[in-house]
Amino acid sequence: MTASTDMRASNGVARLRGGGIACPLPIDDRAVVQMAHGGGGTKTAEIIEGMLLPALTEAAVAATPGQDCRVQAGELSDGAIVQVGDERLAFSTDSFVVSPRFFPGGDIGSLAIHGTVNDLAMCGAVPLTLSLALVLEEGLEMAELQRIVDSIAAASAAVGVPVTTGDTKVVDRGKGDGVYINTTGIGRITAPVDLSPSNCRPGDAILVSGPIGDHGVAIMAARGGLHLDTDVVSDSASVVDLAMAVLTAAPNTRVLRDPTRGGVATVLCELADASSVAFDVDEHHVPVRPGVRAACELLGLDPLYVACEGRFLAIVPPEEADAALAAMQSRADGAAAAVIGEVAQGPAHVVLRTAIGSRRRLTRLSGEQLPRIC
Amino acid sequence: MTASTDMRASNGVARLRGGGIACPLPIDDRAVVQMAHGGGGTKTAEIIEGMLLPALTEAAVAATPGQDCRVQAGELSDGAIVQVGDERLAFSTDSFVVSPRFFPGGDIGSLAIHGTVNDLAMCGAVPLTLSLALVLEEGLEMAELQRIVDSIAAASAAVGVPVTTGDTKVVDRGKGDGVYINTTGIGRITAPVDLSPSNCRPGDAILVSGPIGDHGVAIMAARGGLHLDTDVVSDSASVVDLAMAVLTAAPNTRVLRDPTRGGVATVLCELADASSVAFDVDEHHVPVRPGVRAACELLGLDPLYVACEGRFLAIVPPEEADAALAAMQSRADGAAAAVIGEVAQGPAHVVLRTAIGSRRRLTRLSGEQLPRIC
Repeated sequence: MTASTDMRASNGVARLRGGGIACPLPIDDRAVVQMAHGGGGTKTAEIIEGMLLPALTEAAVAATPGQDCRVQAGELSDGAIVQVGDERLAFSTDSFVVSPRFFPGGDIGSLAIHGTVNDLAMCGAVPLTLSLALVLEEGLEMAELQRIVDSIAAASAAVGVPVTTGDTKVVDRGKGDGVYINTTGIGRITAPVDLSPSNCRPGDAILVSGPIGDHGVAIMAARGGLHLDTDVVSDSASVVDLAMAVLTAAPNTRVLRDPTRGGVATVLCELADASSVAFDVDEHHVPVRPGVRAACELLGLDPLYVACEGRFLAIVPPEEADAALAAMQSRADGAAAAVIGEVAQGPAHVVLRTAIGSRRRLTRLSGEQLPRIC
Repeated sequence: MTASTDMRASNGVARLRGGGIACPLPIDDRAVVQMAHGGGGTKTAEIIEGMLLPALTEAAVAATPGQDCRVQAGELSDGAIVQVGDERLAFSTDSFVVSPRFFPGGDIGSLAIHGTVNDLAMCGAVPLTLSLALVLEEGLEMAELQRIVDSIAAASAAVGVPVTTGDTKVVDRGKGDGVYINTTGIGRITAPVDLSPSNCRPGDAILVSGPIGDHGVAIMAARGGLHLDTDVVSDSASVVDLAMAVLTAAPNTRVLRDPTRGGVATVLCELADASSVAFDVDEHHVPVRPGVRAACELLGLDPLYVACEGRFLAIVPPEEADAALAAMQSRADGAAAAVIGEVAQGPAHVVLRTAIGSRRRLTRLSGEQLPRIC
């Protein structure tokens, strides 16, 4: 009947100043929220690590004494692990503001289901149930809302996770953008896994479950303004079954992470920092579809920074790497999985070994590359 | 290891046509979302019962076979009960779009904490943890965001419920309104209670935990456009401890419900419909502060339709009514609690016995009374 709270941010951290990320407000353009604050990179971290984590961690420490609930929230930006009695639950939330709402390979409705079940799966959990909260803009066509609701329902049925509670709000015309969706999920962790961003060790293998960047390119093309002519479709999909297959084959998997906003490069930087290790990535081993590569070249983007919504990274101990890769490749949704590099001794950094043999340091996404990608 | 799903809406209900609420789309102004769809009354029910419940119930039935999780979602608009192993959990979500964001007695941040812990308490659950998802509008001042985050943290600490996972998105200027917040909570039901909107029986007492309408009037006054001069402050607060006190004193309580959007009248209409009973309410027993009464008279509003954010209704069997009332009144936050009427034989309807002795039928809130009240 005791309680403990362990959030990643240390307590006593000065407000607006997170671990290594200085955010000296208010100064010039930093005094207001910018689109880049939603990009998933360093600017997003300013808000999360600089503002939210210090305040909410302090509150959590004050809140939990005497409560029969052990909260082991690793990071605010991802799923939390909540122990309730004998049950180990994963708990994760995501808002979806993608623009446009309909795109090749998906829409905001199915994306909202896939996004949260995937976050639960990244915690090693089997998703049990989802909540659904809609913020509708006055003037949204009912027929479009119906189409989105049907897509939500179809995705819920397909992934086998029911929506059991919800909320609907309406905001004035010009105070929204059709519809914003929040889904929050509860999952159950039954496998004896220990997944954490700080678990990575030198020698571990870095696996990716399939070709990267499809979602981001599909969204950019759907926006139209770029006049990008491509047949790339979003990879938006549930990775739950594939993730569970990996955990069965490689029970000592260190961490799973889906490279959404900020892409593979940003996720690897975060993991390298959390584990104080180096990541060596072989560019020519990273699966990228020709259409994605062509679009990225045209736009001057690096696929390693482009969001996926149906892929994940698995950091796996060397002795389980073959089993994890085989488990992925034996399934249709993991056929293009690959080992893209390995973990080395720190200090924390990510190095890309390029196809021509040079080495390039990868850093977190900074600034606004792809706003409202999810 | 079996699964069952029981959502209130019956299956096979035609799309866009809910239980008794016809929504023949697309016709004229019904073809688009209107502000009234967010009011919590009949228009909101059109979307929830007419569109969401049929689609999502069908999906839930398809989703749950084979899953080791018993979902007993009563209504999509309120908390769901999720059985996980031996644990009985409550699960509830709410988005907060209140305008203005700061008002006498609270702000969008504390409201977002109170709103969801209260919904969990209405399920008979002790709140364990919350998620927090922010949708920020480009241009929001960082100093204001900090103020809201501090308010969230202070409320989290005060109610003793930690925020353990979160998400932050940014939308373009003109596509939001500063900040929208979603909180979703997990609670634990340990008391042997059986709360359901369909539990009300003739003879039951109708209790309210305190004076009604304060929140709605405070918001209207804060908007300024009405030039309403009042010192009414919002009742926004956690009702968790008070609700638990009621359940301890009156373990056979039929149902708890917080009268937010749509107010006391709308909630009673929903309960009457769900239980197929009549509710007789004595107007002169309903606690209303003089300032709220004066403001409502000025604006032509009925306090029974004005939202509260720190009050709840309890329907209690007659033999436990005195104990429930005493439990409320013995606490500072329940000192003004009152029995406001009783349940009678159906058919389902709500009748107000007015102070002058006449009888008036109360119906659900229709149309848009107070947009963006929470």
